[in-house]
Amino acid sequence: MNIDGTPTRTIRLTGDGRTVEIIDQTRLPHDLVFHRLANLADAETAIRDMWVRGAPLIGVTAAFGIALAMAEDGTDAMLATAIARLLATRPTAINLRWALGALRHRLTPLPPARRADAAFDEAGRLAEADVAINATIGEHGLVILRDIWARRSAAGATRLNVLTHCSAGWLATVDWGTALAPVYKAHQAGIPVQVWVDETRPRNQGAALTACELGWANIPHTVIVDNAGGHLMQHGMVDVAIVGSDRTTATGDVANKIGTYLKALAAKDNLVPFYVALPSSTIDWTLDDGVASIPIEERDPAEVAMVSGRTADGQMATVRVIPATSTAVNYGFDVTPARLVTGLITERGTCAASRDGLATLFPERRSA
Amino acid sequence: MNIDGTPTRTIRLTGDGRTVEIIDQTRLPHDLVFHRLANLADAETAIRDMWVRGAPLIGVTAAFGIALAMAEDGTDAMLATAIARLLATRPTAINLRWALGALRHRLTPLPPARRADAAFDEAGRLAEADVAINATIGEHGLVILRDIWARRSAAGATRLNVLTHCSAGWLATVDWGTALAPVYKAHQAGIPVQVWVDETRPRNQGAALTACELGWANIPHTVIVDNAGGHLMQHGMVDVAIVGSDRTTATGDVANKIGTYLKALAAKDNLVPFYVALPSSTIDWTLDDGVASIPIEERDPAEVAMVSGRTADGQMATVRVIPATSTAVNYGFDVTPARLVTGLITERGTCAASRDGLATLFPERRSA
Repeated sequence: MNIDGTPTRTIRLTGDGRTVEIIDQTRLPHDLVFHRLANLADAETAIRDMWVRGAPLIGVTAAFGIALAMAEDGTDAMLATAIARLLATRPTAINLRWALGALRHRLTPLPPARRADAAFDEAGRLAEADVAINATIGEHGLVILRDIWARRSAAGATRLNVLTHCSAGWLATVDWGTALAPVYKAHQAGIPVQVWVDETRPRNQGAALTACELGWANIPHTVIVDNAGGHLMQHGMVDVAIVGSDRTTATGDVANKIGTYLKALAAKDNLVPFYVALPSSTIDWTLDDGVASIPIEERDPAEVAMVSGRTADGQMATVRVIPATSTAVNYGFDVTPARLVTGLITERGTCAASRDGLATLFPERRSA
Repeated sequence: MNIDGTPTRTIRLTGDGRTVEIIDQTRLPHDLVFHRLANLADAETAIRDMWVRGAPLIGVTAAFGIALAMAEDGTDAMLATAIARLLATRPTAINLRWALGALRHRLTPLPPARRADAAFDEAGRLAEADVAINATIGEHGLVILRDIWARRSAAGATRLNVLTHCSAGWLATVDWGTALAPVYKAHQAGIPVQVWVDETRPRNQGAALTACELGWANIPHTVIVDNAGGHLMQHGMVDVAIVGSDRTTATGDVANKIGTYLKALAAKDNLVPFYVALPSSTIDWTLDDGVASIPIEERDPAEVAMVSGRTADGQMATVRVIPATSTAVNYGFDVTPARLVTGLITERGTCAASRDGLATLFPERRSA
């Protein structure tokens, strides 16, 4: 997507073909800063410290991390080490495991000296595939938004109100995004879309990233606190909710940013369609019960205790918002049961959030 | 309740009997600052700018505001003006209207010269009544917590986990609090209570005030983001939720801090008891449908865009957390339909959240 008219991606190879450049998303929305990742440790830091985030982008960054490691040392030992270290950076996102599995599969048969080239090639291929997949998700989602807009506009509505939680736009992927891909497609198709952007505490990815990229695209949007969505839905101010997924079970349960479940409950209670947009790489075909089985990352309580932003005089500052003597806990994700999900929007189309629904789109997995 | 061993109330008359002292709650949890209110304008500011907040405390502060106005000018014109100005400070809290109605009723028949004394007397009476009402709510709530704790401890639990949203502790009242009164009573009764404290964006009354007063009372507590409660309930980590109310309909619908509805939905979905503790002064007997009828205050979007707290070097700072070009909206409350409420805990006992339930406790209102 464009930033001030310049086509930009969240991650790309630089001219030397051996260094990776990313947007440091911890600096948004206040500063647009690019970082170079030169080795495995840089890639680990980028994922763990959330310079990059979002399941698809985490996967691609990990793939480039393997390539950077192989450029230094193409041995089996380094390959195993690099996979283990990258796998440990974030426990919930299944794409990490999926991307690392793809790299392992491609590199293991090769002699060490040929692994770096192959790894950069494979990582680049995953990046391009992510872009294509998300564009396709956008097209499938557009069908849904067109349908809802046709009904709403016939009833006199002047805009299509979409609510989203966290950041599942292009900043969460290589390009286009997952949950926001349909929004971008709808905007391009002339549908007057307006996005309610959940702030998404504790890291404020909605307020910082979703609002930022919607602003770059000149799409009308309004930031709300995470507490507000239920009220908006009760009063008919949300036409559809679309979120992303960090891991999806074979039965359609969805692990996504903490708080997604609460919005899904409110959508159900108010008959608001609740869609999850996801590349099939987020589907964990081995899991049936999301609440019981998906590991939920517990992050540093300081993310709850502290909030960062820009002061009136333009400085970045971090302030403590809880008493000095109080403690906090910080669960990164929650699981939305399939029963609350209207549909899953994937690169192969939209289906019911169920084993049978997924089987219609992924028949090759039916026996899995 | 005590602050560092000193019995303290949120509002009190100073020694001269003509000045009111309050805790400036916008400075908590970082600084404990008392302000003197010397006239009507001070009282208006204190309520509108939320130096005091919480439905019961707003009502008592408004009553003292009338007294301060009468001390300057006891005429009918000033009485009408003072009531109108105080009524305009916060639209959702019904206690404001209730307290001002009580003052109007008491003062109108009196000659202007006698109104100031009567107003201070009446405001003091409302303050004492609030303390007594909340202590009684605490006793009725304790019955519920004892019962839940008996079952949980028999099942091997080592602590009773209570979730609360916003601040409905003693800082929201004159003393004791509403939602937290049962928690204080349980703590005093030796029940090992632990409180999950919703941060409560945008103004962070949970993180700032509830955590603060629980800390003063040495009650174990953990601050969570507003997004986290559903996850905790899914995993059996919440035994009961108790919140306060800013306005309650005659049918048991509850307007409370924005986001309360989302927690009530999660409680219902996970069979967690969800109680609302309220003085009967928050009941608006004229309303039947909370979602349709209760006016919801829309506050300054800056409260969403900005977060205040203390920096590492001890300074207070306010930081912007959304892009410079993005906008926000800020609804202060939402309405939780009665169907999601396990019970209403009032000064007369606990009842079902329904017209019939309320009629058992308030039979004199049956014909209203």
